[in-house]
Amino acid sequence: MRTNLDPARLLPSDPALRAIAEELYSSVAGLPIISPHGHVDPSLLVENKPFANPAELFIFFDHYVTRLLHTQGFGLENFGKGAAGASADPREAWRILCSNWHMLLGTSSGYWLTHEFATLFGINEAPSAENADRLYDLIATELLEPRMLPRALFESFNIEFLATTDDPCDDLAGHQALAADPTFKGRVAPTFRPDAYLDPRARNWVANVDRLLAVAGESSRNYAGFIRALENRRAYFKANGAVSCDHGVLEAYTTILTSETAADLFDRALAGTITAHEQREFAGHMLAEMARMSTEDGLVMTIHAGVVRNHSTATFSKFGPDTGQDIPVAAEFTNNLRPMLEAYGLHPNLTAILFSLDETTWSREVAPLAGFYPSVRIGAPWWFLDAPDSATRFREATTEIAGFYRGSGFIDDTRAFLSIPARHDMARRVDCAFLARLVAEGRLTLDQAKKVAVDLVVDIPRKAFKL
Amino acid sequence: MRTNLDPARLLPSDPALRAIAEELYSSVAGLPIISPHGHVDPSLLVENKPFANPAELFIFFDHYVTRLLHTQGFGLENFGKGAAGASADPREAWRILCSNWHMLLGTSSGYWLTHEFATLFGINEAPSAENADRLYDLIATELLEPRMLPRALFESFNIEFLATTDDPCDDLAGHQALAADPTFKGRVAPTFRPDAYLDPRARNWVANVDRLLAVAGESSRNYAGFIRALENRRAYFKANGAVSCDHGVLEAYTTILTSETAADLFDRALAGTITAHEQREFAGHMLAEMARMSTEDGLVMTIHAGVVRNHSTATFSKFGPDTGQDIPVAAEFTNNLRPMLEAYGLHPNLTAILFSLDETTWSREVAPLAGFYPSVRIGAPWWFLDAPDSATRFREATTEIAGFYRGSGFIDDTRAFLSIPARHDMARRVDCAFLARLVAEGRLTLDQAKKVAVDLVVDIPRKAFKL
Amino acid sequence: MRTNLDPARLLPSDPALRAIAEELYSSVAGLPIISPHGHVDPSLLVENKPFANPAELFIFFDHYVTRLLHTQGFGLENFGKGAAGASADPREAWRILCSNWHMLLGTSSGYWLTHEFATLFGINEAPSAENADRLYDLIATELLEPRMLPRALFESFNIEFLATTDDPCDDLAGHQALAADPTFKGRVAPTFRPDAYLDPRARNWVANVDRLLAVAGESSRNYAGFIRALENRRAYFKANGAVSCDHGVLEAYTTILTSETAADLFDRALAGTITAHEQREFAGHMLAEMARMSTEDGLVMTIHAGVVRNHSTATFSKFGPDTGQDIPVAAEFTNNLRPMLEAYGLHPNLTAILFSLDETTWSREVAPLAGFYPSVRIGAPWWFLDAPDSATRFREATTEIAGFYRGSGFIDDTRAFLSIPARHDMARRVDCAFLARLVAEGRLTLDQAKKVAVDLVVDIPRKAFKL
Repeated sequence: MRTNLDPARLLPSDPALRAIAEELYSSVAGLPIISPHGHVDPSLLVENKPFANPAELFIFFDHYVTRLLHTQGFGLENFGKGAAGASADPREAWRILCSNWHMLLGTSSGYWLTHEFATLFGINEAPSAENADRLYDLIATELLEPRMLPRALFESFNIEFLATTDDPCDDLAGHQALAADPTFKGRVAPTFRPDAYLDPRARNWVANVDRLLAVAGESSRNYAGFIRALENRRAYFKANGAVSCDHGVLEAYTTILTSETAADLFDRALAGTITAHEQREFAGHMLAEMARMSTEDGLVMTIHAGVVRNHSTATFSKFGPDTGQDIPVAAEFTNNLRPMLEAYGLHPNLTAILFSLDETTWSREVAPLAGFYPSVRIGAPWWFLDAPDSATRFREATTEIAGFYRGSGFIDDTRAFLSIPARHDMARRVDCAFLARLVAEGRLTLDQAKKVAVDLVVDIPRKAFKL
Repeated sequence: MRTNLDPARLLPSDPALRAIAEELYSSVAGLPIISPHGHVDPSLLVENKPFANPAELFIFFDHYVTRLLHTQGFGLENFGKGAAGASADPREAWRILCSNWHMLLGTSSGYWLTHEFATLFGINEAPSAENADRLYDLIATELLEPRMLPRALFESFNIEFLATTDDPCDDLAGHQALAADPTFKGRVAPTFRPDAYLDPRARNWVANVDRLLAVAGESSRNYAGFIRALENRRAYFKANGAVSCDHGVLEAYTTILTSETAADLFDRALAGTITAHEQREFAGHMLAEMARMSTEDGLVMTIHAGVVRNHSTATFSKFGPDTGQDIPVAAEFTNNLRPMLEAYGLHPNLTAILFSLDETTWSREVAPLAGFYPSVRIGAPWWFLDAPDSATRFREATTEIAGFYRGSGFIDDTRAFLSIPARHDMARRVDCAFLARLVAEGRLTLDQAKKVAVDLVVDIPRKAFKL
Repeated sequence: MRTNLDPARLLPSDPALRAIAEELYSSVAGLPIISPHGHVDPSLLVENKPFANPAELFIFFDHYVTRLLHTQGFGLENFGKGAAGASADPREAWRILCSNWHMLLGTSSGYWLTHEFATLFGINEAPSAENADRLYDLIATELLEPRMLPRALFESFNIEFLATTDDPCDDLAGHQALAADPTFKGRVAPTFRPDAYLDPRARNWVANVDRLLAVAGESSRNYAGFIRALENRRAYFKANGAVSCDHGVLEAYTTILTSETAADLFDRALAGTITAHEQREFAGHMLAEMARMSTEDGLVMTIHAGVVRNHSTATFSKFGPDTGQDIPVAAEFTNNLRPMLEAYGLHPNLTAILFSLDETTWSREVAPLAGFYPSVRIGAPWWFLDAPDSATRFREATTEIAGFYRGSGFIDDTRAFLSIPARHDMARRVDCAFLARLVAEGRLTLDQAKKVAVDLVVDIPRKAFKL
């Protein structure tokens, strides 16, 4: 750690609470990182090349950051997006970030970046218009050091397990290369993410289905073949180390159709004669089908519900997806998941972890469901809510209803490889602060809190993801 | 009190806040318990028999607890449920609880049980696989002591008023026996709970209606007779001490139909020719009818809205209701209650207390309604939300909008007789902690806070329930 | 300041936090007040007459207060409302308030009034039945002092900018008089509030439209003329100093119709042949039209969504609007605003500030929208939520997602002229308390927090409202 970050950051200021929190934190600070859901590109570790420059590392692929700069009138082409983005000047992008640093104050992005700048580069000053060029040069120079290569960072980050997120048609060559490489000791697993195949409303769904059938070597272009192809690819992913399937859906709607109805809707979806209502029915049926397959192959389901993707069509057309314009909506789990849980919720092989951007569902629906169904677990605070105060609200909302042991463990869900330690460290601090309060309020003994703190980091994610 | 529980538990750790909170708490800790809504069986007090064993006392009838054990794969038959449950071994059930004690850490159930074990049996160690048998024997022995008989506990708990919840056809013999018994000094009142009669979607609704008509001595099997029968039973309950009617509904939907329409829907509901939409209309009309009757007989309405009961049909079929699988959904009061409040909301005889499992409604709908309508009061945090952090959020959400005096007072709503003191004590501590903060922040004087703390325990529930 | 109010009121009690919060607060306490949205009547400043009496000043026009007295059975006629209200006795109304002071404990109204009584009249005792007459006389006497004249207060309050809210047909004579008066130094601006003209469901919509056309000198009674009339009045408001348009809507629904469809719906709305669905479509189209006009004239949009106005028809019929019976409902922005934002959300001239009474939208929808669209800003906590704990939740909900600089700055939104300093002071204290915690938790440096504290008061409202 090359930093003068406050060693007690995020811990409570009250001296009695802080002492307890520090004691708890000291027992988890050095534990390895388990990252069972995220978006790091495996080629990063396969190729193990130096990061190109500070902007590409910290800005171009972080739409949490670029969206806030976008509010100040800076077009996304400045940050490498779209056709015009190809000629974006990384130093100029970095200057924009530094000159607008006040926009990130108090945000989780600001917190991660401050942590990364401090711990990786020894930077202990806030970026500004004045120091932008100096910081750029400092980071650019350091990026050439061997310790900053992806694999070296993987080791120094103490990552025990890292899951990527992958298209069902991916050949997983990167994962195979890593597994076959005796010089790489880490465990990196793919995750099966079939959204684009399950929902006829997905962009290019017909082409996606045809590609899936082809990759799976499936010749029947019908519902039975489609199901076989999905099962085939799940088996392929599992054989290549996958432990889970991820489902990013607008709503967690499930339903169970008869095979005949499903087959009919599938055919009409391919033919383009399916109605909007039927599309939703088919997508809901396929989400339940994923649960059915999980009862057979044991892959864990993670369900991320409640986001309107690409809210600004103009931005999407010009700059594509993942450009900071995915906006949450109210979520519902109790009724939406009922058909799936009625069918498979008591099956010992099923684990379904529910992630929500609608925090009202934490105490109202998710914790009560996870407090009864052996198959349901509470997903950690996600995306916009993966931040200190939100994570505190998460514990406050779920613990009294379902305790600590029905959760998923912390999930970083990030593309930003360098932010992984900052994120897990934040979660550990927030949890220790929360536990310290329960100890101070006579609700847990210190020994109980210590055990919970460690279990949250190690045991619980291992059990949740069957590691 | 045979316990070394932290005497300052649940109070703030900051020394300035704690001193104020302790001063406030000391003035309410010993006040009698008013319990105007709950689910204790009156036969418990009529028969006054020793509790059978630790498992029956603490596990078999507490679905807050069994649901968490259920998530660990223990079938509910282990806890006395269903046909197989008849032969459940109480000692084995107790072992399961103790061996899985970590599941309850941080939960309200864990808090109640710890409080009960400590104050009633002097147990100050956490249950575990190792001490399970010893604790079982210790409790089983103590249960034979005269001080552990229900009536002795009723007195030592210092219960001033206890309401049960009863079927409209109940003859209330238990209540009459208690009232007639000169050796029992407590006040125990029935509560009229007509859900199964008001909503044609209720299980066995037709049989329920026929039984109601018979019990009320009503010969007209039509809407007018149905209304007379309900009025008759309300009068019977009131004559037997009832102060309120309780309504547990999926949604707080109300509407006011013409008598002709209501009569037509009633007939068609009996005949089985009513539509789903009309069933909802009729149920909404009957909820408003209950308000109309309240303006006449003065019985307080408590409305508990927003739960999908028996979410897992497989569990319900095997183990019945109240088995931990009732899951909340989003609630709505502003529009749903409007027809009822338009008609009766300004009537001086009406009191409608709104309980919600959707905490978003506290600041958005419930407190604003209670801040205007003389008839509307804010129900205390209920069920999953009856816990320290949730109760704190409740005060934070409602006080700035409607103050302290538009609430119901604390409601324990419990089947678990032994948990009543723990629950009321928790509420008093949480309220004192909240009030202490307002004092420290210069928002209340200490004298004002002291008055409020006492009123929350005594005056407010008495006024809310017209005691 | 004639008061012994706690100088550290609303600041955290923890000594470490308090020291930081006090340092931050000291740098903003004396800054001028910018009030870019509110409901003060400009004639107050034009006429500059003494306030009539304590009841008229503090009760008759404050439906936050009268609603709480109403819950105690005091009819609104006691507070000057309705036909019977004309003869309301101000001293008797004041006695009712003082005798029921406990109803206001913990509420924001109670906080404002305590602040006003203390700072303006040196009253440091809680109102009660006993002191009611004495306090009445004390205040009544002070109200005759020159320092208590509206203009003198405007100056002593240190108001830099005050916006009123005005009907589009208003001739703004009051504003013109103030602007032309060399003895009045303040800046007072009108705000264009066209709700009653944009939504065919508004009371007397047809008459409203005809008046608008007449005032705008527009002879074409059709959609094109209607649009021209609105543009004409916006221009008139802008020429008279307006910086914003305010939209109070049940839902923030927007849609964009073709001119032909809009013209057809307009004609049929005038003719009374429009359906309920079409009324909503037309209103949604007109809200989007306001955004279109804003891209042309640069007036800021403030959108206040999610209230059922006049919930009790009996009360409305007898006492009119703004009588404490406006009740919030769940709000939605992500989908509702999408058509408007798709069309105009990236336009550099548009600013749309979103105010919500449904606090669940803060983290779920409003902050994410404001974190991407340059045109969207987060409205300060509004109405029922304009209070210390709610404002703290607002910061906690929005800051991690969108930082501090995507907000509106504090908005008092009040009719109660005398409460303006108390409200702005409260907001400053709450923000300093929040910032102090971030500093203590190592999330901001003290220097960063100081800068943010000042920007929240000065820079941010100026930018948000283009002052």
